[in-house]
Amino acid sequence: MPDAYTPKPEDKFSFGLWTISNRGRDPFGDVVRDALPPVDAVAMLAEVGAWGVNLHDNDLVPIDATPSDRDRIVRDFKAACERHKIVVPMATVSLFFDPIFKDGAFTANDPRVRSFALQKTMRAMDLGAELGAKIFVLWGGREGVETDACRRPDEAVKRLRYAVDFLCEYSIDRKYGYRLALEAKPNEPRGDIYMATTGAYLGFIPTLAHPEMVGVNPEVAHEQMAGLNFVHAVAQAWDAGKLYHIDLNDQVPGRYDQDFRFGSANPKSTFWLVKFLEDVGYSGPRHFDAHAYRTEDDEGVKDFARGCMRTYLILKEKARRWNGDAEIQALLKGLGEDGAPQAYSPQRRDALLNETFDRVSIARKGLAYEKLDQLTVDLLLGVR
Amino acid sequence: MPDAYTPKPEDKFSFGLWTISNRGRDPFGDVVRDALPPVDAVAMLAEVGAWGVNLHDNDLVPIDATPSDRDRIVRDFKAACERHKIVVPMATVSLFFDPIFKDGAFTANDPRVRSFALQKTMRAMDLGAELGAKIFVLWGGREGVETDACRRPDEAVKRLRYAVDFLCEYSIDRKYGYRLALEAKPNEPRGDIYMATTGAYLGFIPTLAHPEMVGVNPEVAHEQMAGLNFVHAVAQAWDAGKLYHIDLNDQVPGRYDQDFRFGSANPKSTFWLVKFLEDVGYSGPRHFDAHAYRTEDDEGVKDFARGCMRTYLILKEKARRWNGDAEIQALLKGLGEDGAPQAYSPQRRDALLNETFDRVSIARKGLAYEKLDQLTVDLLLGVR
Amino acid sequence: MPDAYTPKPEDKFSFGLWTISNRGRDPFGDVVRDALPPVDAVAMLAEVGAWGVNLHDNDLVPIDATPSDRDRIVRDFKAACERHKIVVPMATVSLFFDPIFKDGAFTANDPRVRSFALQKTMRAMDLGAELGAKIFVLWGGREGVETDACRRPDEAVKRLRYAVDFLCEYSIDRKYGYRLALEAKPNEPRGDIYMATTGAYLGFIPTLAHPEMVGVNPEVAHEQMAGLNFVHAVAQAWDAGKLYHIDLNDQVPGRYDQDFRFGSANPKSTFWLVKFLEDVGYSGPRHFDAHAYRTEDDEGVKDFARGCMRTYLILKEKARRWNGDAEIQALLKGLGEDGAPQAYSPQRRDALLNETFDRVSIARKGLAYEKLDQLTVDLLLGVR
Amino acid sequence: MPDAYTPKPEDKFSFGLWTISNRGRDPFGDVVRDALPPVDAVAMLAEVGAWGVNLHDNDLVPIDATPSDRDRIVRDFKAACERHKIVVPMATVSLFFDPIFKDGAFTANDPRVRSFALQKTMRAMDLGAELGAKIFVLWGGREGVETDACRRPDEAVKRLRYAVDFLCEYSIDRKYGYRLALEAKPNEPRGDIYMATTGAYLGFIPTLAHPEMVGVNPEVAHEQMAGLNFVHAVAQAWDAGKLYHIDLNDQVPGRYDQDFRFGSANPKSTFWLVKFLEDVGYSGPRHFDAHAYRTEDDEGVKDFARGCMRTYLILKEKARRWNGDAEIQALLKGLGEDGAPQAYSPQRRDALLNETFDRVSIARKGLAYEKLDQLTVDLLLGVR
Repeated sequence: MPDAYTPKPEDKFSFGLWTISNRGRDPFGDVVRDALPPVDAVAMLAEVGAWGVNLHDNDLVPIDATPSDRDRIVRDFKAACERHKIVVPMATVSLFFDPIFKDGAFTANDPRVRSFALQKTMRAMDLGAELGAKIFVLWGGREGVETDACRRPDEAVKRLRYAVDFLCEYSIDRKYGYRLALEAKPNEPRGDIYMATTGAYLGFIPTLAHPEMVGVNPEVAHEQMAGLNFVHAVAQAWDAGKLYHIDLNDQVPGRYDQDFRFGSANPKSTFWLVKFLEDVGYSGPRHFDAHAYRTEDDEGVKDFARGCMRTYLILKEKARRWNGDAEIQALLKGLGEDGAPQAYSPQRRDALLNETFDRVSIARKGLAYEKLDQLTVDLLLGVR
Repeated sequence: MPDAYTPKPEDKFSFGLWTISNRGRDPFGDVVRDALPPVDAVAMLAEVGAWGVNLHDNDLVPIDATPSDRDRIVRDFKAACERHKIVVPMATVSLFFDPIFKDGAFTANDPRVRSFALQKTMRAMDLGAELGAKIFVLWGGREGVETDACRRPDEAVKRLRYAVDFLCEYSIDRKYGYRLALEAKPNEPRGDIYMATTGAYLGFIPTLAHPEMVGVNPEVAHEQMAGLNFVHAVAQAWDAGKLYHIDLNDQVPGRYDQDFRFGSANPKSTFWLVKFLEDVGYSGPRHFDAHAYRTEDDEGVKDFARGCMRTYLILKEKARRWNGDAEIQALLKGLGEDGAPQAYSPQRRDALLNETFDRVSIARKGLAYEKLDQLTVDLLLGVR
Repeated sequence: MPDAYTPKPEDKFSFGLWTISNRGRDPFGDVVRDALPPVDAVAMLAEVGAWGVNLHDNDLVPIDATPSDRDRIVRDFKAACERHKIVVPMATVSLFFDPIFKDGAFTANDPRVRSFALQKTMRAMDLGAELGAKIFVLWGGREGVETDACRRPDEAVKRLRYAVDFLCEYSIDRKYGYRLALEAKPNEPRGDIYMATTGAYLGFIPTLAHPEMVGVNPEVAHEQMAGLNFVHAVAQAWDAGKLYHIDLNDQVPGRYDQDFRFGSANPKSTFWLVKFLEDVGYSGPRHFDAHAYRTEDDEGVKDFARGCMRTYLILKEKARRWNGDAEIQALLKGLGEDGAPQAYSPQRRDALLNETFDRVSIARKGLAYEKLDQLTVDLLLGVR
Repeated sequence: MPDAYTPKPEDKFSFGLWTISNRGRDPFGDVVRDALPPVDAVAMLAEVGAWGVNLHDNDLVPIDATPSDRDRIVRDFKAACERHKIVVPMATVSLFFDPIFKDGAFTANDPRVRSFALQKTMRAMDLGAELGAKIFVLWGGREGVETDACRRPDEAVKRLRYAVDFLCEYSIDRKYGYRLALEAKPNEPRGDIYMATTGAYLGFIPTLAHPEMVGVNPEVAHEQMAGLNFVHAVAQAWDAGKLYHIDLNDQVPGRYDQDFRFGSANPKSTFWLVKFLEDVGYSGPRHFDAHAYRTEDDEGVKDFARGCMRTYLILKEKARRWNGDAEIQALLKGLGEDGAPQAYSPQRRDALLNETFDRVSIARKGLAYEKLDQLTVDLLLGVR
């Protein structure tokens, strides 16, 4: 029965093909769910109310498919997407599953691996373009080390730059119109992964040949694995005009990559994230990169997917109310008006240097952040 | 204006004297609030609706007070408590602030420090008893190391055991009727602290001469600093009959000791904690060991204290509703009835060894934990 | 070419069958090495100089083997062990790989799973006994939750106690003479695992029906995942007489379970561990529960195994030198003689209460721990 | 007695005035060491063999000093520096100690605080220039939040940009010739700090008006608090031409800011850092931002300072030997020659797309990283 929290296409909720098809294998246990063919996954996404589906090349086309197999698979998938009114906003490439990538892809020491990674990515870009994707995500899941003996880390940066520059040229050359979104992660499956945080990629992009077509794809779990405040990373990306895509899920800090249902680990930090995306008017996909607990069957997978979207919509409504809450807004207003800051000039310099500040009295002013935060808790818990 | 979430004495909410009197000093900055004399602190606690106050010896009596000063201070404090109907359920001792404890107290290498720590603790026990406390907390905040070169860690365990055994005898001897509650912490202010987790103390207690009078005082922040699930530690303590006291606050995992307002970092994990305490019928104090943000003045301190209690009561009501939610309870019921497990016997052994299990079919059953958890999220967020 | 760091049988180095047979699968990638049949694994262990091999039931016997297959496999394995002079000091049971354990084993909600887990463990105990093992390890890798909605955590403790009590009776009944060693881990593959630390198990054991036959199996990586000081946990276990077995490997704190080569992540913390084991005279197996990087072929697996043992022996020699270093020992001696602490008595009480301490002067004494630690660094780095 | 590891001026070892003058106060305890006047600190640095001293404005000049006091203090300090041949390569400003900064400085909500922060920084730049410093570090230790309710995080980024742009203009205007080095930290003393990692600042710099004069000052402890690989961050900064300064110390991941003696927590990760700095020819100061354990007296402070430099020099010599080790170099050479990567062109594109790769055989090649890392361990431990 639809309610205020039922997803609609304009919410732009997308899921990775790999998320609802996740079979539950982990380092200590075998698969628990049957394979879900891509066309069935599309049907399931339509059933739960999603708008889009994203994919790695090999989520859809096996790595050893013949060209004709490949074409048939893609044709069937496109038909399923059309039938179910599901779009493909983003595509990506698996540069981590096949054993050839055991030492990384673009940064691997073996030049053949680096070449193969480029080839595979170009083909994945072809595939994504064919499916209508305009965002291409690059996650260098194995670009890293267990021991820094194996290569100098600045060499890895150079190799990565070469690859991204190359792929930008390819997109231009093919007129794909892609925006590339780089996804950071601190560790797992490698001991350490290069470009450990979204910030690192924001620093890397300006060193590229085509910075204007490259942005980031921050993932909740990946920043929180390092115990970092996710919304701060998202805000920096937004400020820099680089928030091209986002991976929504949840994660307890300082652990293995959990990819939990959106909002399930910490609804409060999730609230700040949803509020930020809505406040700034982020118009891209709300992509869930998560998977159902291993305890679930196919019904549980649907519960999982529905829960991701539902929690987003509940928190979106909370954000609207927070912005309209008179007591909250009055507290914020009391913190000090901004005014336009004045640019540097000799006059401004001298005025500032000559200004007298009553340090003690300014310091004594209480800021009422405890109250502000408690009002937020009340609002979140529905008692306000 | 009182509402359903206004604290009452029967809620047994207590605060450390050090919590509302916290002046906001941190490793990188100076005090931001004036000293709050103990009698004023008692008045403030009464004003916000608390039931009890706890204290370290030196929260009340300066370390260098003369006996007559000490007696006057204690007399005034007792009078304030009576006037404001505030009880003192717990007392403890500062074995960390004075520089003499820079290498620990009961485990310090210098035998004079160990002796002084015993003396100081006996006197703190006298003080607590005089104030009516029946629980005595021991937090070995400096029992640890920056380098394991300085002593063998099993020697530290032996020294700690000697001290606790000694203090148990003292309580018996003086007929104080104390229950000692040991409080664990993994690190800070020492590089590593011995007895890093509540579990470690649960393992230590059975090695004591008087295990029957020693339990634990788990603290939310201290377990969560190590990224551990707090309610699991509390449950083990409860199961062992050792949950003598509890320190409530909040903390983001993997960081410095934050001592945030109860429920402010993660309302969902806090919910499981409140639900557990209420479900099992924990009847001890709900003690808040937290402090206001450094941005706050005295009004902000009250907001902080009120928020701790309010969030507890909101979550308590949520727990009541969770237990009465028909859909949630039906899901739980479907997970499998327990029945009394049969004790070992040759018959039971053989029956079990001969039983045939349909591994595949049992494994395929979906457990609906995603649904169960999403219903919990809905309930927590007030949309259910 | 053998040198001072070549392993000998009396070093009691053992490896899990699963460690050198690890095929390198991880959550993001496929296997990279061929299956290594158990008899070949035994040959490899002999080649690199190990003394023992440990195993889960299904490392040797597939879960669906027929009784006759099982007997043949075991016979061949025993023959290989005898041929290569490899002993089996420890056995354990896989209660995590098969999908039936997706919700845990002894603590699962489905009573059939709990019964099957008991049956499977009894059979694994039979197998271990047949191979000569006297230590039986229990690692409850899936005894945990992703959401605490699914069961009350104290119920999990009760179920776990029932199971361990049952299995103790079974060992007694069958006259296996096992010592059970419980292995803790904070998380992964479950969101949270019950009995998260070695300390938690030390607290659990005294609540059992047969505490005298149950101890712990601490693992470096498992404590360090939670950022805890491993040697402190080992020391507490040793002090309690409960260090029945140990899992040696290495791990960077706050990450996925890395199971790195012994000493490879942090040689200094590893040094304190080796020194402790040698100083107290731990006489059990030095068991390596680690695996080769995924970048390695079979030769790399041997390099890995050799490296584990070599680093242990290097650090053992460092520990010997540390204990004999005059400057280090003089610093330690200067820290204060211990003397036998006096038991509680009214006389001792009064003497202590009346003693006068010069707080200030005691506090001013420098303890030279920086020097002590730097001498350790010098010694470790071979420049002393 | 000088040996190969005795510091020389050309090693460019510097210490913060605040490091050797640290009095050992922490959140749970009082000061343990006497105040060390700046001129005495300079003498101590000279005694232990340092080359430079760095300072916050208020390390030298009290916040409430009169202009004439200020001038006298500076004059005496300069004289001491000259007398002891100690240089001042870097200066910085305290925007965190005084209570006025309780809500941050450049990002504080109160515009008066932001103005005062600018004024204070301009004056600190004057001071640094007077002392000869050419590097000016900005650490926004309180630019952060306990609750994201208090401001939108993109607003904080804007405010920070305004301030850095302003200060760049000031340096240009005054012809100070400063290079500004921004220092990241994830948390503590704030719940979360904006610009949590060195990568975040590398992403921020290109959005400034004068990116050419702004770089980073990475600190070991600050990246490792978030569990990140420090040398990877340093390598990215180096690659971007932005490694203007560096803060050397040590830190166990996932904890409070420990600021331990260089190399004391993990000599192996420290080795990769020293090796990187020496390999690339970093020519800036080797600045130690650490402090002695709280157990130390003044002699212990000197032990601490000497240890920092000694360990650096030991590891530098290890790096030299690693680079010259034939077996290590042969392994590296076998990993694949690089050759100059070819730029994108239609020809290169087609050649790559048409290339055939033998995935299976490439994947099977063992990379000998276990051996490479074990040889490193052997070399580090001095047995090679």
